[in-house]
Formats: sequence, structure tokens, C-alpha cells
Amino acid sequence: MHDYKMVAMIPARLGSKRIPKKNLRYLGDKPLIQYPIDIALQIPDFESVWVNTESEALGKAIEKMGAKFHKRPEEFSADSCTNREFTYHFMCHHECDYVIMVNSTSPLLRLETAQRFVKFVKEHDYDVVLSTLSEKAESFYRGEPLNFDRKHKVNSQHLEPVELTVWALTAWKRETFMRLEKQDICPVFAPGGKIGTFSIPKDESSDLDTEEDWRVAEGALAARLMRENKEPRYLEI
Amino acid sequence: MHDYKMVAMIPARLGSKRIPKKNLRYLGDKPLIQYPIDIALQIPDFESVWVNTESEALGKAIEKMGAKFHKRPEEFSADSCTNREFTYHFMCHHECDYVIMVNSTSPLLRLETAQRFVKFVKEHDYDVVLSTLSEKAESFYRGEPLNFDRKHKVNSQHLEPVELTVWALTAWKRETFMRLEKQDICPVFAPGGKIGTFSIPKDESSDLDTEEDWRVAEGALAARLMRENKEPRYLEI
Repeated sequence: MHDYKMVAMIPARLGSKRIPKKNLRYLGDKPLIQYPIDIALQIPDFESVWVNTESEALGKAIEKMGAKFHKRPEEFSADSCTNREFTYHFMCHHECDYVIMVNSTSPLLRLETAQRFVKFVKEHDYDVVLSTLSEKAESFYRGEPLNFDRKHKVNSQHLEPVELTVWALTAWKRETFMRLEKQDICPVFAPGGKIGTFSIPKDESSDLDTEEDWRVAEGALAARLMRENKEPRYLEI
Repeated sequence: MHDYKMVAMIPARLGSKRIPKKNLRYLGDKPLIQYPIDIALQIPDFESVWVNTESEALGKAIEKMGAKFHKRPEEFSADSCTNREFTYHFMCHHECDYVIMVNSTSPLLRLETAQRFVKFVKEHDYDVVLSTLSEKAESFYRGEPLNFDRKHKVNSQHLEPVELTVWALTAWKRETFMRLEKQDICPVFAPGGKIGTFSIPKDESSDLDTEEDWRVAEGALAARLMRENKEPRYLEI
């Protein structure tokens, strides 16, 4: 295990389009932005936990939740911006070995999974680690079967999985990211470097993009809470 | 639009392993098996709606719900069996142009989506149509980037999707399926024939395999019901 210096970064902008004011909105008993904060603060490997936002008001609010406020310039919160811009700005101000991005858009992420992710990063030497959802289903790409042969039907457990990136958790090696950026190369997937994937459980993999996603996440959270003392009921036949 | 004769087939076995007695278990206010029945019975294009099961007792119960009982031989309900065996047996007893399989394991499917699927089948001449979930996320296959270039980060809307088969709905042209089976060729994906994919909304694409899936579906259903008259709440900043 490496003894990396790790810093948690939680991106949050106010101007979300498809779900307005997403980060402030209550999901169950707390606002969305509080989910990644509560998780990150429980991970001792993080030397510090920052919310990366353009909003002074949000910055004040998250400080009350125990996180620190990294103010990004207004222009890095435009719709056209990707994590490339605001992550680079963050790295310029925070010296460390790895920046771990914890995203508010995956509020179903469990602490235990985030801890396993951090352990995975520490056990390796990747330039970037992405969290993924590993799906074993007959898949098509550009209209053609990808991981199955039309001549055979096998049980899905035996299919080669497709791994879909979920932006719940991302680890970037700061040195690599900054070096590539300075060479004007997009550093998000660390081209030329080592990329790792870390599979997270399906029920933690929601990505809140639309109102419908929001409702599904709300339901899944409710289901988690209610499940303990509920016995299944069956139709009598 | 073709005027196909279509028959709905709902597979249901009693001996499900990972979620015991899945089809009898109540999800919300009705047993799982009733979800596809209620949907199929509302689609006038279906000449008849059959539950394909080995269980006499379940057969009686589903008749009360308005479906017909197709008894499959016990041996086609083994764990090792795939839809190939029980679908062929069903087709031998039901003359039609298409068998449309509606699966109880996707209870979040909406009537409207099933109707659109049926319309899609009627507008074409496929040997098989699969329902899929279209995912626009940076994807890996066998450890390699599939639909993205590590040198660029683009917004996910611009990625080429991967289509994952969800067994919510499947249409098989009976003539093709039976011909291939008689030639000892696995007919599930109609090799040599025309295969179509029909993308269904993400919030309808659950596939109940595990207890965790069950709980997520339960939550999603609850969320659908509760959403109407609930105003979002926001953190004040």
C-alpha cells in the first residue's frame, strides 16, 4: 500500500440545467450536496475535503457541513465546461498525490464502497481510476453484437461484461494531470498513462441527470431505509 | 404496418433461486406475476395472453387474473434451461406470426412502452426484436476503451451508445424460430436473420435478479406513486 497524500474534491455548481438547483435540493432528509460530504468526511485517508463551486453562498453552506470551500472562477461553471477545467484549477491550488473526485450526482454511493475505492487507489499506481458499472448483458455496439455470438444463448453470468463509467468516484494523479494539461493534452483519461477501473455495485450507480433519475434515487433510498423490518408477502396459490 | 398475429407469452417458474418464489411475491400492491399480465391484457394487438409455467397451482392463480395457462413440462423449468427450450415448446402449441415475451422480471415497464414496442414490431419484418437500454457513458470492453478516445473528454450526450439487452420484451418470429430449432441451431438471436433492438427508458429497465434489485424496484415504484403532489424542498443559502 502506498502512502499517498489524497485530497477529496466535490464539484458543485448552482446552475444545473436538467434538475435546477440540484445540489441544494433535498433528497430524503438532506440536500444532495451533503451526501458526498458526509461520506468523504468519514474517510481518514483524505487529508482534506473540498467543495469546488463558483457560489459564495453555497461555499458558506457547505462549511457548516464540515467541508472546505474551493472557489472556482465563474467561467468554469458554464454548461460547456467539463471536469477538465475545474479540476485543473483545483489542482493548481492544492498540492497532493491524488485528487479524489466524489460526485454529488451519485448519492446512493455507500461509505464502504468509497473506502474500497480509496484502498484500490493506494494499492496501485494508476494515473487515473474511474468507477464503473460492470454489466453482464448481451450488448450491441454500432448495431453489432459486442460480447455475444448470435449462434449461442448462454446464461448472462458467463458473458464478458461491458464496463460503463459512472462518475461517482474518480482518482487523478495530480502530477500526471498537471503535466498533460501543460502540454495542452486533455488529462481526464490520462492518455499514455495507466488507467484503472473500479466496479461499484449497481444499486449505488445512479447518476442524477434528469427528474426521473431523481425520483428513482429517492425511491431507492426510501427502500434502503424501509427494508430492515419488512417481511416479504406472497400470493397464496 | 403489418397485420401480424401476435401472442403474448409470460414465462414464470416457481423455483427461482436468487429471489425465492419471486413471481408470487408482492411488489407494492400486487404479486410480481401480475405486472406483465396487467400490461399484456391492455394491448389489443395480442390475440391472447399466456403464462408459461410448470406449476398447476400458479396456472390456476393467473387464470383468475385474466391470463391463460400454458403448461410447460417440468424439465424446462430447470436452472440450466434458457428461454430457448420453453419458447419452442410454447410455439409448438400456439400458431401465430410473432410470440411476444413479456417478462415479470421487469415490473417497471410502462404500458405505453410495451405499446410502442408492439408498434415497432408491426412496422418491420424482424426475425427477433430485443428490448435494450441505451447507455451513453464512456465504456470499456476487455479493459480497452470502446466508445471514447482517451485523448478527448466530450459530453456524454455525444458518445456513441452501448445497447444492453434487457429481457423486458422480446419478439420472435415464430416461423424463423421453429425452422432454426428444427435445424438444431439456437434460434434465440436468429442467426442469419434480421435482429432489431428497441430502446426502453432507463427507469423501466430494472431486471429483478437479486434481493437488492427487488428493493430498488420497490423504491422506484413507490417513488412513481408519491411523486405527483410533492414539491421539491431546497436548502436555503
